[in-house]
Amino acid sequence: MTTIDRLLSFIEEDAPFGDITSEVLIPPERECNARIITRQPCTIAGVEEASLLFTHFGCTIRRVVQDGDRVGAGTAIMEISGKTTAILLLERTVLNLMGRMSGIATATSRAADTAARANPRVRVAATRKTAPGLRSFDKKAVKLGGGEPHRFCLSDQILIKDNHLQIVPIEQAVARAGTATLYKKIEVEVEHPEDALKAARAGADMLLLDNMKPLDVQKTLDLLESEGVRRDVIIEVSGTITEETLESYAVLDIDVISMGSLTHTVINTDVSLEILPGVQTIRV
Amino acid sequence: MTTIDRLLSFIEEDAPFGDITSEVLIPPERECNARIITRQPCTIAGVEEASLLFTHFGCTIRRVVQDGDRVGAGTAIMEISGKTTAILLLERTVLNLMGRMSGIATATSRAADTAARANPRVRVAATRKTAPGLRSFDKKAVKLGGGEPHRFCLSDQILIKDNHLQIVPIEQAVARAGTATLYKKIEVEVEHPEDALKAARAGADMLLLDNMKPLDVQKTLDLLESEGVRRDVIIEVSGTITEETLESYAVLDIDVISMGSLTHTVINTDVSLEILPGVQTIRV
Amino acid sequence: MTTIDRLLSFIEEDAPFGDITSEVLIPPERECNARIITRQPCTIAGVEEASLLFTHFGCTIRRVVQDGDRVGAGTAIMEISGKTTAILLLERTVLNLMGRMSGIATATSRAADTAARANPRVRVAATRKTAPGLRSFDKKAVKLGGGEPHRFCLSDQILIKDNHLQIVPIEQAVARAGTATLYKKIEVEVEHPEDALKAARAGADMLLLDNMKPLDVQKTLDLLESEGVRRDVIIEVSGTITEETLESYAVLDIDVISMGSLTHTVINTDVSLEILPGVQTIRV
Amino acid sequence: MTTIDRLLSFIEEDAPFGDITSEVLIPPERECNARIITRQPCTIAGVEEASLLFTHFGCTIRRVVQDGDRVGAGTAIMEISGKTTAILLLERTVLNLMGRMSGIATATSRAADTAARANPRVRVAATRKTAPGLRSFDKKAVKLGGGEPHRFCLSDQILIKDNHLQIVPIEQAVARAGTATLYKKIEVEVEHPEDALKAARAGADMLLLDNMKPLDVQKTLDLLESEGVRRDVIIEVSGTITEETLESYAVLDIDVISMGSLTHTVINTDVSLEILPGVQTIRV
Amino acid sequence: MTTIDRLLSFIEEDAPFGDITSEVLIPPERECNARIITRQPCTIAGVEEASLLFTHFGCTIRRVVQDGDRVGAGTAIMEISGKTTAILLLERTVLNLMGRMSGIATATSRAADTAARANPRVRVAATRKTAPGLRSFDKKAVKLGGGEPHRFCLSDQILIKDNHLQIVPIEQAVARAGTATLYKKIEVEVEHPEDALKAARAGADMLLLDNMKPLDVQKTLDLLESEGVRRDVIIEVSGTITEETLESYAVLDIDVISMGSLTHTVINTDVSLEILPGVQTIRV
Amino acid sequence: MTTIDRLLSFIEEDAPFGDITSEVLIPPERECNARIITRQPCTIAGVEEASLLFTHFGCTIRRVVQDGDRVGAGTAIMEISGKTTAILLLERTVLNLMGRMSGIATATSRAADTAARANPRVRVAATRKTAPGLRSFDKKAVKLGGGEPHRFCLSDQILIKDNHLQIVPIEQAVARAGTATLYKKIEVEVEHPEDALKAARAGADMLLLDNMKPLDVQKTLDLLESEGVRRDVIIEVSGTITEETLESYAVLDIDVISMGSLTHTVINTDVSLEILPGVQTIRV
Repeated sequence: MTTIDRLLSFIEEDAPFGDITSEVLIPPERECNARIITRQPCTIAGVEEASLLFTHFGCTIRRVVQDGDRVGAGTAIMEISGKTTAILLLERTVLNLMGRMSGIATATSRAADTAARANPRVRVAATRKTAPGLRSFDKKAVKLGGGEPHRFCLSDQILIKDNHLQIVPIEQAVARAGTATLYKKIEVEVEHPEDALKAARAGADMLLLDNMKPLDVQKTLDLLESEGVRRDVIIEVSGTITEETLESYAVLDIDVISMGSLTHTVINTDVSLEILPGVQTIRV
Repeated sequence: MTTIDRLLSFIEEDAPFGDITSEVLIPPERECNARIITRQPCTIAGVEEASLLFTHFGCTIRRVVQDGDRVGAGTAIMEISGKTTAILLLERTVLNLMGRMSGIATATSRAADTAARANPRVRVAATRKTAPGLRSFDKKAVKLGGGEPHRFCLSDQILIKDNHLQIVPIEQAVARAGTATLYKKIEVEVEHPEDALKAARAGADMLLLDNMKPLDVQKTLDLLESEGVRRDVIIEVSGTITEETLESYAVLDIDVISMGSLTHTVINTDVSLEILPGVQTIRV
Repeated sequence: MTTIDRLLSFIEEDAPFGDITSEVLIPPERECNARIITRQPCTIAGVEEASLLFTHFGCTIRRVVQDGDRVGAGTAIMEISGKTTAILLLERTVLNLMGRMSGIATATSRAADTAARANPRVRVAATRKTAPGLRSFDKKAVKLGGGEPHRFCLSDQILIKDNHLQIVPIEQAVARAGTATLYKKIEVEVEHPEDALKAARAGADMLLLDNMKPLDVQKTLDLLESEGVRRDVIIEVSGTITEETLESYAVLDIDVISMGSLTHTVINTDVSLEILPGVQTIRV
Repeated sequence: MTTIDRLLSFIEEDAPFGDITSEVLIPPERECNARIITRQPCTIAGVEEASLLFTHFGCTIRRVVQDGDRVGAGTAIMEISGKTTAILLLERTVLNLMGRMSGIATATSRAADTAARANPRVRVAATRKTAPGLRSFDKKAVKLGGGEPHRFCLSDQILIKDNHLQIVPIEQAVARAGTATLYKKIEVEVEHPEDALKAARAGADMLLLDNMKPLDVQKTLDLLESEGVRRDVIIEVSGTITEETLESYAVLDIDVISMGSLTHTVINTDVSLEILPGVQTIRV
Repeated sequence: MTTIDRLLSFIEEDAPFGDITSEVLIPPERECNARIITRQPCTIAGVEEASLLFTHFGCTIRRVVQDGDRVGAGTAIMEISGKTTAILLLERTVLNLMGRMSGIATATSRAADTAARANPRVRVAATRKTAPGLRSFDKKAVKLGGGEPHRFCLSDQILIKDNHLQIVPIEQAVARAGTATLYKKIEVEVEHPEDALKAARAGADMLLLDNMKPLDVQKTLDLLESEGVRRDVIIEVSGTITEETLESYAVLDIDVISMGSLTHTVINTDVSLEILPGVQTIRV
Repeated sequence: MTTIDRLLSFIEEDAPFGDITSEVLIPPERECNARIITRQPCTIAGVEEASLLFTHFGCTIRRVVQDGDRVGAGTAIMEISGKTTAILLLERTVLNLMGRMSGIATATSRAADTAARANPRVRVAATRKTAPGLRSFDKKAVKLGGGEPHRFCLSDQILIKDNHLQIVPIEQAVARAGTATLYKKIEVEVEHPEDALKAARAGADMLLLDNMKPLDVQKTLDLLESEGVRRDVIIEVSGTITEETLESYAVLDIDVISMGSLTHTVINTDVSLEILPGVQTIRV
C-alpha cells in the first residue's frame, strides 16, 4: 500500500457507510474555509499527510508552517477550503494522525535538545516500538523531530540480541552475520563490558549497551578504550531511558541513545480544526 | 481486511524482506518455548490477537490469563512453543499491540474505578481519537477495561456538532436527523444550558455537554430537571477531562464521561517475551 | 477499500486482461460522445458512481438528472465524452451498477408511496438482505428511493433475535445490552404480543414484530397501548411483506415496515449506453 | 483476491466492528448445532461457499445435498456445528449469497428445462449482466443450474458489437480480429439477416442475433442455410427474452439463447438458518 | 488491482520506508529534466506503464517513440520533467519493467520475422510461462512485438493436455468440453499423428502438436490432409522450440508456433535514465 | 501482502474464473500423486514456495531435496499428493516461480564458483534489477545460490550515485548521510580513482566502482592502498560484468562483484510436474 492508500484506508475505517450526520445536515455542494491550529507548543508533523488527504478529496490547501517547524500554542498550521462534507469527513482522521505525529516529533525534539545540551555529539533514536501499521509515520515523525529513525524493520539491519546469543556465541554470531551480507550494519546487544569487548573484537559495527546504568556504560567505554577498540564501534545505549535519566547518559562519550518511549508512549499534540466564519446559516 | 489479515500486515510492515538476523543465526527447524510476561500491573488485552498470530505461524499457545483480567507485575500472560524463528519474527509486533491494548485497558479500568467510587451509575467512554488503522483494537481494549466504546465511526450514530449547528439550528437539525433514520441514536453537542434544553425538547436521545465546568454541568442538569426533560435524555460530559478532574464530574447526576485521553495518549504497558531455558547452544 | 477502489475492482473483474475486442478494432486515440438513457420509468441511482468511474478514466461527464430523481422512460441520464475504448470498457459495469441501484431505488420509492398513501407517518425500510459486497450501494439506493436504510451491519445496532433469546430471556437480554452501550439503539425481535410487552417494559428502544399478521400486529399495539408503553418504543413490522400486503400493514399505527425484497430481489432498471452519431467510420 | 478472501470481505462488510449483539449476549465458548433449510423448491447453489466460510471460522459442516441438486421446499441443505457466535456472525452473509446463487441456479434450470422441452439441442446462457463484484459467483450458479456461462469478461472472447461496427465494417472487423488472435472465438452481433450472412462469410465463429423477433431469426436461418453457411457458425439469440417468450425461440434451429434476466433480475431463494434445540438457556 | 495499483505496488516494494539517500541529499522542491534511452536496438515496450507512473507522481512526460516501435541503440524513448526525488524514486522500477517488456517484445519480433521469412502465414505465440504477477505485462509485450498472446489464463480457453487424457479419452474429452461451453475454443495437446486425427474428428478447434520433430509434424499434417480434416483445425506446434529450430517448423503448413522462451527466459533490454544537464550543483 | 497472499495472487492471475478445462474433465473428488523434476542440472529454489501453495490447497507434500541443493538433470524435487484439480490448478504457477528462482540460484552459484576459484575472498552480489513484484523471491534465490543479496530496496542502505553527486559534492554528501543515520551503511558510486579516494576519506563504508575496466580498478586499489585507506572501505565492482569477464575482476583485491544479469536476464530452469501412474482412466 502506498501512502495515500494507507491514508484512505484510515478514512474508510472511520466511515464504512459514510458520515451519516453531515449527510443529512449539510448540502453536498456547500463549501467552507477551515484551518488547523495547534493548542499546544509543538514540533509539527503530519502536514504532508493532511495535505494528501484534503487534496485527494478536492480541497485546496495552503500550508502556513512546514513539517518539522517548532511552533507555539495557537499557531495556525494549514488552511483548507473545499466541500464542507469532505472537510468534516476527514477532520478526525487528520487530527488523529497529526496529533500523534506531532506528539512524537515534539517528544523527540525535546529529548534531542536535552541530549545536545549535555553532549553535542550524541544523538537520540527511536526503536521498533511503534504502533502497528503506523511504522512509517512514526519513524518520519522522529526524523522531523531531529531524531535518528534507527532500524525501520527486521530486514534492514543485523541486530544480534540475547535470544540469538543463547544459540550462537558472540564471535561466531558476528562472523556468520558478516558472511551473510556486507551491506547491512551489524550491531550486537550486550549487557556486560566483556561482551562488549568480544563483540567489538569480532568486528561488530555497533554495540547496543542494554539496560546498563551510566556507571556500567562508563566502565564499558573504559574497557573498550583501554583495549584500543573504542573507535571501531558505534555505541548505542538503550533500555527504559526516560526524559529524566537521559542527561546522565548523554554526558558520556557515547554515540546514540535510543528511547522506546518516543513512539510507544505518545502524548498526542492537541490540534484542532476550525470552520471559519463567513458561512451563512441556512434555514431549511 | 479481517483481523488476521490486519495482523499479518503488521508483520509484513516489520519484515518486508524477512528477519535477516535470525535467518543467519537460527537453524530453521529449531524450536523453543517462550512466554510473555507483564512487568507492570495492568488490565491485560491483546491476548486474543497474539494467539491468532502465533497460531497462524504454526506455534501452539496456552493462555495463562484471559483478556480483561487484572494482573500484577511479573504475571505470565501466555506460553508459546514453536519455531524459534517464528517466535522472534512475531515478538516485537505482538508486544507492540499487546502493550498498547493493555495500556488502553488499564487506563480505562482505572478511570472506570475512579468514576464508580464517586457514582456507581456513571460510565467512562472512549472517543474516536484512536490511532489511525487501530480503531477496532483500541475500542476492544476500552471494552476489556470496562469502558463504553462509544461511536465506532461516523456511520453508526448521529452526532450533531458545532460545525453542523453553524449551518442548521438545533431544532431543525434534530428533526431532520429523526427523519433520516429511526435506527441510530441522535446526540447533540452543546456548550450552554439553553442549547441543552432546546436539544432535549427537540427529541435528541443524548446530549454531549462539551467543555463545561462541573458547575455548568450542574446548572444544565438543573435546567433540564426543572423543565421536566432530564429523564428523556442521556447525558454525556466531555472535553479534556483527565484522571485528576474525572471525579469532580463523576459525582454529578450524569450518565457517561468520555475521555479522549484513553486512546489518544496511551502509556504502553511494559510486556516482554522471554525464551525459556532448556535450549542448547549450538556450536557451528 | 474506498468507493473508487471498489468501483475499479469491478472493472478489473470485467477485464482482467483488457477489452480484447475494442483493442483490435478501435484506434486508442479515437474519441466519441455517448449518453446513458433509461428505457423504463424509474427513480434513478448510480449516477454518482458512474461519474466517478468515467472521470477516473479521463472522460468528461454532464449529469442531465440527479441521483434520486424520478424520470420517465427514454430519459437521458448523463452524457459522456472521452476515449471510445474507455467508454466501452466501462459500459457494462456502469450499467450493471446503475441498473441495480435504480431498480432498488425504484422499488423503494414505489413502496414508500404505497405506504404514505395509507399512513403518512409510516416509513419503509430495507434490511441486511443485500448482495454481498454491495451493501453500501444497496443501502444508498434505498435512501435515494426515500426509504430508511435500517442497520448497515452487525456493528451499528443491538438487535436481539430469537437465537439470542433462546440463550438469554428478554428482560436480561435488554438489561445486558443496556449495560454494554448507551450509544446504540436496542431493538428486540418478537413474535407474540406478550413478548413485545416484556421487551418494552425492559427498556427496548424498538420492537421488531416479526412474521405477524396485521391482526396480530393490531393486538400487540392494543396491548402496548393499554399497558401505557406504546409511546416508549418504535414499532417495526417485518417478515416477507410484499408490495401486495404492504398496505394492510401501513394502515396500522406502526412506525416502520421493513422489506427484505427491496434488496434481495431486485428488478434491474433497463438502462443503456448509446454512442452518439458524428463519429466517422474508419476504413482500414 | 481468492474466493475465501472475497468471502471474508463480505463478512467484514457486515461486521466492521464485530457483532455487537451476540458479543454481549452469548458466551464466547458456547457451541450449538444449526442447519440451513430452503423454504422454497430450488436448484441449490452456494453450498461450497458456505462451507468455506463456516470451516474458516472453525465450524464443522456436513453437506446434506450438493450444489446443483434440485430440492423441494423444507429440505435441509447443510448442518453446522461450532461456536454460536461464529454461526450467527456468518448467518446473514451466507444466506444472502446462497439465496442469490440458488435464485440464479433455479431460474437457469427452469429456463433450461423449458428450452429443452422445445428443442433438446438448444442451450440457455447467461450474459455479463451480473452484480458487480459477484461475477464468478453468478456464473458458477448459472453452470450449476445447467446453463452455459457465456463470456466471463471482456478478455476471453471477441464480441463485435454495434459500437464497433460503427467504426469498422463487418468484414474488416472479423478479419482484424482473426489476425489478432487464433485462440479466442469471434462472435458478431447483428440485427439484420444480411449482416448475419456477411459475418458468417467473413469467418465469424458465432453470430449473436440481437433483438430479433422469432420470425426474423427464422428468416436469418433460412438465408444462412440457402447460402450454405449455416453450419459454419454457432447461432446465439438474445435481447430481452423472458421465460414467456423463451419457447418461441427455442423451437427454432438455433444453438443458444442468452438471457440477461438470469443474473440481472434475481429472485433470491428463501433459505434460512435454524439453531437446533438441545441448547440450554443460561440464566445470568 | 488495476494497472496503476499494480505499478504503485512495485514502487512500494522498492521503497517501503522511502528513498533514504535522495531524502537526505536532494531538496524536495528541486526539479530536473531526464530522459530514458535504450542502449541496444529493440522493439520498445513499457512506455505506457512508465508514463502512468511518472504522471502519477506529478511529472510531465513526452513520448519520443511509441510502444511497439523498433528503435536503434541510443534512441531516446521518452523525456520527463518533474521533482528530482520523484524521478529517482521511480527510476529503477520503470527501467526494470521497460527492460523486461522490451526484452520480450524484441525477442518476439525477431522470432516473428524469422517465421514470416519462412512462411508468411505462420504466427509466433507466447505461452503461460510468464513471471508470476506479470502476466498482463508479459502478454502485452508479446503483442507489441507482433506475437500472438495465446491463452491469458486457465479461464479463457479449453486446453486438454496429457494429464486430462490420462483420465478421459480424447473423444469423450472433446465432447464433454463442447457440452460445457460454446464460447471458448477447444484445443487438444497431442504427441502422435493418430491422436491428432482423433481430436480433429472429435471436433477440436485446435491441435497442439507437442514436442514433435518437424518430420513428425509433417507426418501429422499429411494424415490430417489425407483424412480430409486438415482445414477443420488450427495447428499449433510447441515444445522447446528455439530461435535456432524455429525456421524448420515455420516452413511447414502450420498455423502457429508457440515458444515458452519468449517470456520465461527474458534478455532484458538495456535501458537507462539520464538526468539532463542544466541542473546547478548546490553547495551546502 | 504476506508470502502466501502473494502466491495466491499469482494463482488468481492464472485462473480468475477457474480452470475451465479440468473442471469439466476431472471429477472434483479425484486424487493423484505427482512429482516435480528438474530436466536440467541446477541449484534448486522455490521448493518452500511450492510447498506453501500445495499445502494451502490441501495437498500433502514431501520434499526430496532442499532449497539451495545442487542437483543433476532428472532429479525429483518434491512429491505431492492431493486433489488432481488442485495440482493442475497450481502446476503452471509453481513451475513458473520455481523455474525462475532456480534459474537465478543456478546462475548465482555458477558465478560464485567462478569468483571463488579466482579469489576465495570475493563475493558475488545481485542488484535491484529484479522483476517488479518479485524482489523478495529473486533476492532469496540469490542467497540460495550462495550470492550476496545486496540492497533489498531504497530504504535499507545509503547509496550515493552520480545523480546525487551532480547536486552535492562527495565530501558533503557523505557527511550529510552520516548525519542522517548511523544505522545504514553509506556507499558511494564512483567512476574515477580520485573520487574513490575522496569518498573513502569522507568516511564512506563502501565504494562502488562503476563501469571501470580491471586495470582502472587496480589503479584505484593502488591509490587507496598508498593513501592508507584501503582497509577502511569495502570495495564493490559493478557495471555489465558478465560470466565471461567475471574472472578478470575476481582476481583483484576487491570484496564483492555485483551483477545485474543474475536477476534481470534469467534463464529459467526447466522444471516440470508429472502425474504419476496408478491413476485409473475413468470411462464416462
